[in-house]
Amino acid sequence: MTTMDAPAIEYLIRDIVPPSEAWRQKARLHLDTLTKPIGSLGRLEDLAAQMAAIRQEKFAEPVSKAVYVFAADHGITVEGVSAYPREVTHQMVLNFLAEGAAINVLARLHNVALRVVDVGVDADLHDAPGLLHHKVRVGTRNMLHEAAMSEEEVREATAVGVKIGDDAAAAGYALVAIGEMGIGNTTAASAITCALTGASATLATGSGTGIQPGVHAHKTRIVEAVVARHFGSAAGSSPLEILRCVGGLEIAAMAGMVLAAARHRLAIIVDGFISTAAAALAVAMEPKVHGYLIAGHRSEEPGHTLLLNHLKLAPVLTLAMRLGEGTGAVLAMPIVESAICLYTQMATFSSAGVSEASQ
Amino acid sequence: MTTMDAPAIEYLIRDIVPPSEAWRQKARLHLDTLTKPIGSLGRLEDLAAQMAAIRQEKFAEPVSKAVYVFAADHGITVEGVSAYPREVTHQMVLNFLAEGAAINVLARLHNVALRVVDVGVDADLHDAPGLLHHKVRVGTRNMLHEAAMSEEEVREATAVGVKIGDDAAAAGYALVAIGEMGIGNTTAASAITCALTGASATLATGSGTGIQPGVHAHKTRIVEAVVARHFGSAAGSSPLEILRCVGGLEIAAMAGMVLAAARHRLAIIVDGFISTAAAALAVAMEPKVHGYLIAGHRSEEPGHTLLLNHLKLAPVLTLAMRLGEGTGAVLAMPIVESAICLYTQMATFSSAGVSEASQ
Repeated sequence: MTTMDAPAIEYLIRDIVPPSEAWRQKARLHLDTLTKPIGSLGRLEDLAAQMAAIRQEKFAEPVSKAVYVFAADHGITVEGVSAYPREVTHQMVLNFLAEGAAINVLARLHNVALRVVDVGVDADLHDAPGLLHHKVRVGTRNMLHEAAMSEEEVREATAVGVKIGDDAAAAGYALVAIGEMGIGNTTAASAITCALTGASATLATGSGTGIQPGVHAHKTRIVEAVVARHFGSAAGSSPLEILRCVGGLEIAAMAGMVLAAARHRLAIIVDGFISTAAAALAVAMEPKVHGYLIAGHRSEEPGHTLLLNHLKLAPVLTLAMRLGEGTGAVLAMPIVESAICLYTQMATFSSAGVSEASQ
Repeated sequence: MTTMDAPAIEYLIRDIVPPSEAWRQKARLHLDTLTKPIGSLGRLEDLAAQMAAIRQEKFAEPVSKAVYVFAADHGITVEGVSAYPREVTHQMVLNFLAEGAAINVLARLHNVALRVVDVGVDADLHDAPGLLHHKVRVGTRNMLHEAAMSEEEVREATAVGVKIGDDAAAAGYALVAIGEMGIGNTTAASAITCALTGASATLATGSGTGIQPGVHAHKTRIVEAVVARHFGSAAGSSPLEILRCVGGLEIAAMAGMVLAAARHRLAIIVDGFISTAAAALAVAMEPKVHGYLIAGHRSEEPGHTLLLNHLKLAPVLTLAMRLGEGTGAVLAMPIVESAICLYTQMATFSSAGVSEASQ
């Protein structure tokens, strides 16, 4: 695996330009010529204009789509914060490769290429066929007692995502989604949310995969202790420092993927709580990536709404989901693709001979 | 065209049974064996269980889908309630047939068969190829001064929808959507909303295709006068009477289609304000149809939310749309289809060898 050092991340960030406002404006004007009342496609018009601003070219159709699922384990699981045992990360990776998980079904149905990336699963997966092998270490350390990662590990895991983003661009995808699998990673996402937004552990901690109220109270206390240990009362830690202390290997990789996607002018659909935490860290590293983000859905995790508000992103879908794996992001893809096709394929008032509004 | 008399409508309604609660329960149990935290697919699990309750059989895949767009004109347009001239109904029907409208793009992208039905367009369309010809009359009468239809016309227009629903079932579609085109029809839908829910014209009247504030105030006064003329202060008019006084030919047809779909155990995805008004009338005729309805989206029209609340339906999408044509319903189809495929295709905990939750 290629690793990437800190100067390289700096270089990457320097290369990012925001989506083109001139193209967004041009797209808005075109949308107003199409045979529909002005603005009547609502959010779809915003999405079409955003995609035009990002791509700055004619769209190739069908839109080429991919979802990347980053998997890793978390040292915090020894504290009993999840309803599921740690080995489920490994088992679900095998389920992805066997095409049996929710993300497989959705990717298949919506014609989305699915790639699963091992950034840090605590199991020997070196002979698992079809898996992208980029293990940095077998799970993070227990952030209740020490930093989850070393600086070097943060860089390596981020570089994994950068490489994947480069590969996605080279493969010609126009729309990429990120998702994750990692037992314990809502605990990490909650700690990141506290560090980034200043929210309390109580507000930022949810029920994850579905823990009972007693376990939820315990998990909240763990998040509180983790945040107090690493950040004290002082806000303003750098995104790389937040990743080192309370991040996850898959979260660092997703942050790197967001940076690379933005550099390559790829629209990136963010899934739920954990991938949005990664996107928020990427935005903290370089605010110019913001315009490349599409929030696929609003998950049931309370911390997700805190992050969406922090990022000022309105989700495409709100379906009371809390599964991860990129499922909410892939479900939003047919909506985003619809926006693109409406933009490129609808008749205009003049071409169709339809009378315009009198006002 | 076959017409249908009142006893036949009575017969049709007698034939409707609600979706199977036993199948819904069975589906819930199956969903809980799939490799995901219990309940984590949120609304998709509700939709899968509803579809199982409706179909009561193994699903054939790919799910066979169709959208029916009912077009008709409205006598009320002479009162200046719309931003667009009346001939746009006719022009947009030609745009549908030429594949240039928003609904064409969405139906094509999502593999949904599209049928356009002339129930009452004020234009000679008899040689328009591909159109389903069921014109009852060239638009309704001006409901500000007289009933929009005769009793006989209501029956005929409803029978058009019943026939279309019968044909959809015979064609083997598992999922059908309804939409409409008719300049002036948000005014009719507002009057229906007032009659059905008791809401004031102020609450039930929106901006339709995008009228200016002054026209909106005028439209609101027209709705108020129409409701006062036909229903006075007395609530409790029958749905057929509401249709006769303030309905539309396309609205009557959509109500008939909902009844027929329920009789054939077809799930029916309702679009926006006007088609939901039709569905609400069908529910008023026979409450057992309720379980067959899926609200595709929540439109920007304020009256639509009144009707969704009245029907206790939670929309699948909320995308600030207000176009009609069935666009919101067809956009919801990939979500509903996703729910079905997750239900039928996901691995179980035991088949995939994944550990279950500890609680």
